[in-house]
Amino acid sequence: MNTEGLSINLATVRHQFGLKDGVEACLKHRITAIAPWRDHIQATGLDEAAQIIKQNGMKVTGYCRGGLFPAADAAGRQAAVDMNKEMIDEAAAIGADCIIMIGGGLPKGSRDIAAARAMFADGMAAVLPHARAARVPLAIEPLHPMVAADRGCISLLSQALDLCDALGEGVGVAVDVYHLWWDPNLARDIARAGKRILAHHICDWLVPTKDLLLDRGMMGDGVVDLPAIRRMVEAAGFHGHQEVEIFSTENWWKRPGDDVLKTCIERYNTVC
Amino acid sequence: MNTEGLSINLATVRHQFGLKDGVEACLKHRITAIAPWRDHIQATGLDEAAQIIKQNGMKVTGYCRGGLFPAADAAGRQAAVDMNKEMIDEAAAIGADCIIMIGGGLPKGSRDIAAARAMFADGMAAVLPHARAARVPLAIEPLHPMVAADRGCISLLSQALDLCDALGEGVGVAVDVYHLWWDPNLARDIARAGKRILAHHICDWLVPTKDLLLDRGMMGDGVVDLPAIRRMVEAAGFHGHQEVEIFSTENWWKRPGDDVLKTCIERYNTVC
Repeated sequence: MNTEGLSINLATVRHQFGLKDGVEACLKHRITAIAPWRDHIQATGLDEAAQIIKQNGMKVTGYCRGGLFPAADAAGRQAAVDMNKEMIDEAAAIGADCIIMIGGGLPKGSRDIAAARAMFADGMAAVLPHARAARVPLAIEPLHPMVAADRGCISLLSQALDLCDALGEGVGVAVDVYHLWWDPNLARDIARAGKRILAHHICDWLVPTKDLLLDRGMMGDGVVDLPAIRRMVEAAGFHGHQEVEIFSTENWWKRPGDDVLKTCIERYNTVC
Repeated sequence: MNTEGLSINLATVRHQFGLKDGVEACLKHRITAIAPWRDHIQATGLDEAAQIIKQNGMKVTGYCRGGLFPAADAAGRQAAVDMNKEMIDEAAAIGADCIIMIGGGLPKGSRDIAAARAMFADGMAAVLPHARAARVPLAIEPLHPMVAADRGCISLLSQALDLCDALGEGVGVAVDVYHLWWDPNLARDIARAGKRILAHHICDWLVPTKDLLLDRGMMGDGVVDLPAIRRMVEAAGFHGHQEVEIFSTENWWKRPGDDVLKTCIERYNTVC
């Protein structure tokens, strides 16, 4: 079956593989694109990670995950800026197409989500010159409103695009079907995003969903109209990989990694 | 403590009280406004329910819950229209300020949320003449996007207001902080709603939230800036009751009903 245009976010097989064996497993299934998380790179060491990726000719469709700028005090906000600058250097070293930037949640004790959003914008502006210099695009990923309080205060694609407009060159968006499938303005906003779409993440929304974070479904097992969203993204001008990102404590993280990859390929060919 | 302007949605004490003893408990605490659900009315019988409400001088800030129009076939859609017409008559009989109308989820097997939304609009149009004749306003309640698939396909306040614009007189919105607190366009859309705000529901968003439906928090226990949203609603011209609606399997539904009501009053006076 076809694996062209398919990328595996390594979170999908987080409990089965690290970076090295994850790459090997992907290659065994003729998957040549991945998206690693920072802990994958740190566990391996940056030089070795870059070598594994380059020697195997892997495409890196994204590096997860930066952003997370809101913090209770100036020291916390500076730490986030520093962390993101390090990630930009790491992303350059491994040749990532972009860094996935998520909003972060409310600082402890805060009920002011507008302030958190302003901190995100400030943090983006603070790291953007470094990202431009390193030629690493930053992809703002709106997260589902159900994680706005504790994980991602950037919730709507329109909101991410307003930020892109304000920040200028070097910033785009990641369109993750899990976070955005329900948005009545999705078609409008994907068209507005146009060439600023830097990543396209796929999985599915299960009914019922049993956990706000770790119960994502495999493509085809839920209610998301994946072909419809893919057509919107392609019409907007994005023809990059579809990246499978599934967090699934009770199902996919428990299965043999090879079976998960096989299923990703099968579903990619039949329902995406 | 002040109880003026406070209403108790009887779902908040669903496991402690029915309609009659719920009204008695509220009156004991000098709460004179409630919002019952249809099962409360059906368990009591409409005539007796209306009598309990009127003889005790209770204000009814809303009747829960109509809408739910999407269905897999024409017979299912007609059944929903019929159910809503019956609810309109019941709402008139108990003197409810409005009926709370929720979107309903995707019909079984469907991945077409746009179609579900169109069915909701069609259903609203079908029952609206009946509602106008009975002088019962219909309050469209946008529900949190995390329940878009299985419960409420109307997700954004802006989306509900677009429907109000299309449907005309007799339709407004319910602003529930639980569903809308995260929306970056909340201030804009509450101002746009203006006099069309027919109900204002309060509770809180807990961090962490352990269940997508039944883990709502008591005001003050979460991250919602309740006074800020109250000010937006008042500035828009709504000066009706704040109605406490908490679904809480593992906490508030397990406590003695009097304690829950006491806590609602205390928090209403201190954090709302």
